[in-house]
Amino acid sequence: MNVASVVHVNTSAPYDVLVGHDILKDCAEAIAQVAPCPRTLALVCDDVVEPLYAGTVSRSLEDAGYRVIRFTFANGESSKSMETLIELLNFLAENKVTRTDYIVALGGGITGDLAGLAAAIYLRGIHFIQMPTTLLAAVDSSVGGKTAVNLQAGKNLCGAFHQPDLVICDCDTFDSLCEEHFVCGLAEAIKYGILCDRELFQMFEAYNRGDSIADIVARCVQIKADYVVGDEEDHGKRQFLNLGHTPAHSIEKLSHFGVLHGHAVAAGMAIMARACEKKGICKEAFSQRLCALLAKHNLPTASAFDAQAMAEVALSDKKRRGGKIFLVVIEEIGKCALHEIPVEELEDFFRAGETA
Amino acid sequence: MNVASVVHVNTSAPYDVLVGHDILKDCAEAIAQVAPCPRTLALVCDDVVEPLYAGTVSRSLEDAGYRVIRFTFANGESSKSMETLIELLNFLAENKVTRTDYIVALGGGITGDLAGLAAAIYLRGIHFIQMPTTLLAAVDSSVGGKTAVNLQAGKNLCGAFHQPDLVICDCDTFDSLCEEHFVCGLAEAIKYGILCDRELFQMFEAYNRGDSIADIVARCVQIKADYVVGDEEDHGKRQFLNLGHTPAHSIEKLSHFGVLHGHAVAAGMAIMARACEKKGICKEAFSQRLCALLAKHNLPTASAFDAQAMAEVALSDKKRRGGKIFLVVIEEIGKCALHEIPVEELEDFFRAGETA
Repeated sequence: MNVASVVHVNTSAPYDVLVGHDILKDCAEAIAQVAPCPRTLALVCDDVVEPLYAGTVSRSLEDAGYRVIRFTFANGESSKSMETLIELLNFLAENKVTRTDYIVALGGGITGDLAGLAAAIYLRGIHFIQMPTTLLAAVDSSVGGKTAVNLQAGKNLCGAFHQPDLVICDCDTFDSLCEEHFVCGLAEAIKYGILCDRELFQMFEAYNRGDSIADIVARCVQIKADYVVGDEEDHGKRQFLNLGHTPAHSIEKLSHFGVLHGHAVAAGMAIMARACEKKGICKEAFSQRLCALLAKHNLPTASAFDAQAMAEVALSDKKRRGGKIFLVVIEEIGKCALHEIPVEELEDFFRAGETA
Repeated sequence: MNVASVVHVNTSAPYDVLVGHDILKDCAEAIAQVAPCPRTLALVCDDVVEPLYAGTVSRSLEDAGYRVIRFTFANGESSKSMETLIELLNFLAENKVTRTDYIVALGGGITGDLAGLAAAIYLRGIHFIQMPTTLLAAVDSSVGGKTAVNLQAGKNLCGAFHQPDLVICDCDTFDSLCEEHFVCGLAEAIKYGILCDRELFQMFEAYNRGDSIADIVARCVQIKADYVVGDEEDHGKRQFLNLGHTPAHSIEKLSHFGVLHGHAVAAGMAIMARACEKKGICKEAFSQRLCALLAKHNLPTASAFDAQAMAEVALSDKKRRGGKIFLVVIEEIGKCALHEIPVEELEDFFRAGETA
């Protein structure tokens, strides 16, 4: 198995993230290290990923002697629901999946979130393996153990913290992503550069689609892992990962989720960069450089919504506590801080970030 | 607040179990210690408990300044389902319950299991408080953090380990239990005496319904807590709590759950006592003494099902691992051990326990 990088995530139950090219075909080799045969593996994927990669993965696993059962659901956010979760749980029970068996989530963020939550609550928790097939899932949701489905009242309202036992990230799978979904992953990846890695930020400036991305992915995963370790349940430093996400969530909600998450994050980071410059928090002329990078990858650099509307939506959000709101602010490329500001100042902050 | 006993449960997030008589009316006093005002408390109960105790609890909480919202579901095992769970989750979301709010489970085991699971997965986990109103819930399910609902394929297949922040056990609520449900709780309570407390066993021999039971409940909860601490996720010593449960689960399944859990546990313990005597594992003439105690409380002392059928059902159960099965065996009153026996010997073991 030709693994380019191994990132060790030192959570309470530690695990490895394997990053490479063309490694799905040998996935059984890595899985045997954490979950030796004989064992049932419940492969979960959506109906877009299924014809692309499920065969390759199943073949590797079955050749190695595993019993593979397959659960396929309809692609799209509407499947990230309690209804699909129940179907998956019933599927596991009907197929007599036991406490020592594993779930394998093969796909993007929706698949990982859904399958991860099933793993968290089936028989009060069984093991699972993430195989992200999107850049966004690779650098974001497949590491850190956040799992969830949506309720009628909102996104990700039902979930659990449940770390995977292994993450296998085959970067070749990103080749099948449309331009739009690929750059959405890039937006979250660029975030890590701004947060704490100036050299990584420069790597994005030099990057063009088609270049090998395994090194960048491994570097992003390492950063995410550093934030997750010591704050698995999101009470502390993990909040830094919300850089750009306060305005991003407002944009998503105001657009009724018509704007993709990665696009919203790109715009949100641009807003934060401009606001931090104007407020004198950011010491360097960063916003122009960031916008140039986002534009290079066809990512948006502004919001279509007014600062007032964005602030209102943000303050009705669950993250508000008392009269203050936490914002991740940019001090320079690779250095951010957590600022607590009065809720009354949020609109002014967003206003400052509207335009250069 | 007139608390008779406080049992401290030293789990990873420690909590207290308050046991007393007529303490529901002052529950806000105890809750304020773990969850000060202002705060929303979502009170969950079934439609039998609701008219009996929800008013008393709500009054105490509202007088103390809490916002109380109430979710009531239909009494009975059929409510311990994914469907009721979804209703409860949607109720929490619609009422804008946040991460800092609490769920209060007021009722028996079904209520605690359902509300506890909702607390485990709503917003990836919020706090909850158990207020058991049955003897069974008081000595068993309200302590230890096991939560679950049933799936179509079987009982408790979907759940989580999620410890409460506080347990308030008002023994006066047991007065409203019918004889049958009261003695079902006694069966599980008697188990703790057999497991590790000869004096407690003697207390049951002296006990008659109507006597104060708070001391007995506190003693049982202390024992349960000792088994849970250090094995929160049920991989080790917590298995001892399964004394009598292997035959009991077979009886329940063979009766299509027509036999109540506590009745099945009583019969299961009697079977184990006789088998352990015949096999020379139990050093004293214990089974007659146990059967006399069970009979005194109108609990069954034998199974209506054949040893062969019981063994078959037990071996199709999720607890089987490879060619061995673990059984909790009785060495004397107050001293048990974990024995691993080949699956082929289980029928013979049950056979030995069939009759005296």
